[in-house]
Amino acid sequence: MHPDLAFPVWTGERQRRAEDFLERVLPGADTRPARLHEAMRYAVLGGGKRVRPLLAYAAGEFADADPVHVDAPAAAVELIHAYSLVHDDLPCMDNDTLRRGKPTCHVAYGEATALLAGDALQSLAFGLLGESSMRASGAACAMLAVAAGAPGMAGGQAIDLASSGAALSLPELQTMHRMKTGALIRAAVQLGAACGRPLTLAESAALDVYAGAAGLAFQVVDDVLDVEGTAAALGKTAGKDAAQQKPTYVSLLGLAQAKRHAEALRGEACAALAPFRGTARRLVELADWIVLRSH
Amino acid sequence: MHPDLAFPVWTGERQRRAEDFLERVLPGADTRPARLHEAMRYAVLGGGKRVRPLLAYAAGEFADADPVHVDAPAAAVELIHAYSLVHDDLPCMDNDTLRRGKPTCHVAYGEATALLAGDALQSLAFGLLGESSMRASGAACAMLAVAAGAPGMAGGQAIDLASSGAALSLPELQTMHRMKTGALIRAAVQLGAACGRPLTLAESAALDVYAGAAGLAFQVVDDVLDVEGTAAALGKTAGKDAAQQKPTYVSLLGLAQAKRHAEALRGEACAALAPFRGTARRLVELADWIVLRSH
Repeated sequence: MHPDLAFPVWTGERQRRAEDFLERVLPGADTRPARLHEAMRYAVLGGGKRVRPLLAYAAGEFADADPVHVDAPAAAVELIHAYSLVHDDLPCMDNDTLRRGKPTCHVAYGEATALLAGDALQSLAFGLLGESSMRASGAACAMLAVAAGAPGMAGGQAIDLASSGAALSLPELQTMHRMKTGALIRAAVQLGAACGRPLTLAESAALDVYAGAAGLAFQVVDDVLDVEGTAAALGKTAGKDAAQQKPTYVSLLGLAQAKRHAEALRGEACAALAPFRGTARRLVELADWIVLRSH
Repeated sequence: MHPDLAFPVWTGERQRRAEDFLERVLPGADTRPARLHEAMRYAVLGGGKRVRPLLAYAAGEFADADPVHVDAPAAAVELIHAYSLVHDDLPCMDNDTLRRGKPTCHVAYGEATALLAGDALQSLAFGLLGESSMRASGAACAMLAVAAGAPGMAGGQAIDLASSGAALSLPELQTMHRMKTGALIRAAVQLGAACGRPLTLAESAALDVYAGAAGLAFQVVDDVLDVEGTAAALGKTAGKDAAQQKPTYVSLLGLAQAKRHAEALRGEACAALAPFRGTARRLVELADWIVLRSH
């Protein structure tokens, strides 16, 4: 792909690429058990910004990887993300009815099928990564497992659950978000980069700083949008953090300070990649996009 | 380990080995998020027959593997099994309150924590396998993913869910059970064997026949025990298949015929391994144990 391509064109192309790949690897709605397969497809396809796949493709470009090799890890992180949304929306968790502008999976397919669909999406993520063309596909699975499991996303959600109505300090809030959303975003970057040439130590370190800062920035912006956004723009229920008395960057810092914090994190992410301006271009553009997005 | 060891001694030693390994790889109840970690440990430790780990160790012996190499795949299949029980017991699924003689995970820790604990156990299974010493750990993850996901266990559970009160034919019932329980049992055998020397085609084929028949036999016996057993012996609610109007081998064949079917499957499993009597000894003994067990 031509390196001078404008960012929205590049983004659109990579989003379509991710969508096509997911479409292909998800089990068909015409095969048994059809209802489970339908629910899996419903939860994954036709929506979402595909932030994690975009980060994986951009990190792949940073490491001179052919996008064809990034397809599997990009899809794997998105499948983990999609499964987490299905389970997160269940009545025993956030009990949410709107996601990506559509009824949530359990509203559309019932709780039991949604539970199983989430479970099967997680399995599929590891299946894709395990059979991928990556040099060390086993190690890639282990990396994704840490990002998705108790040390990462699932652990972060458990802390989130326990902190409803509680007063968290800023460091505690950051730890929660580093686990809940940051770990998987970091995995997207690391797995994408692992599809290319071996990185130098300086490149690896810079990528890690970038991923950490971009991941946190993403969450800060999410918190801001939950206050400022509308359900129509977000495609999900707005204002639910406050309704559930969840500690957020906005509740801790106030709206203006939270926005400044997101901007500072964006600066940190981009500064880390400044020495590699050419190859890091898409990653820098993505950090800008994450912070400046409106949904 | 001495090859002449009596079966109960071998079984006890391997169960302890599996328990110790699981104890070590599960996150500590003294680290954050403690409640999630507690729920994960509660769901896995201190109970269960460890049928799948035993099958993995026995298949490992068949392939001359050192048990130390079988620890990770044995634990991985058991973690998948344990997570499936946690999710299966949830109110939106079987809504069960008793498991392994204790309150089910969601009764003890609440639904949300149980949901996340199950999710994190699945991640941990792939994490262990991905970072294991297996020759092709990525391929092993892919194999486990197929066994656990929509083509296997989760898909089988979806069919089970849809078949409550329905009239299944015997082939339909077998398909459901090959997916729901058979796939993971087969994975236990395959992954255990993959830890040793490369198998001949004849050995691989025999192992596959064995695993398929033993897996089905396990389910037939489960159906029989659900009718004949008591909650005290089973450690879980008895008679729930009939209460939920689930099609079972007993409802389809009657009790006497179901028992004969289990015996025939045991014969099939053992006959497949007859040419390899020495190295297959533990597998044969396990097939006997699976069919002759009382809980």
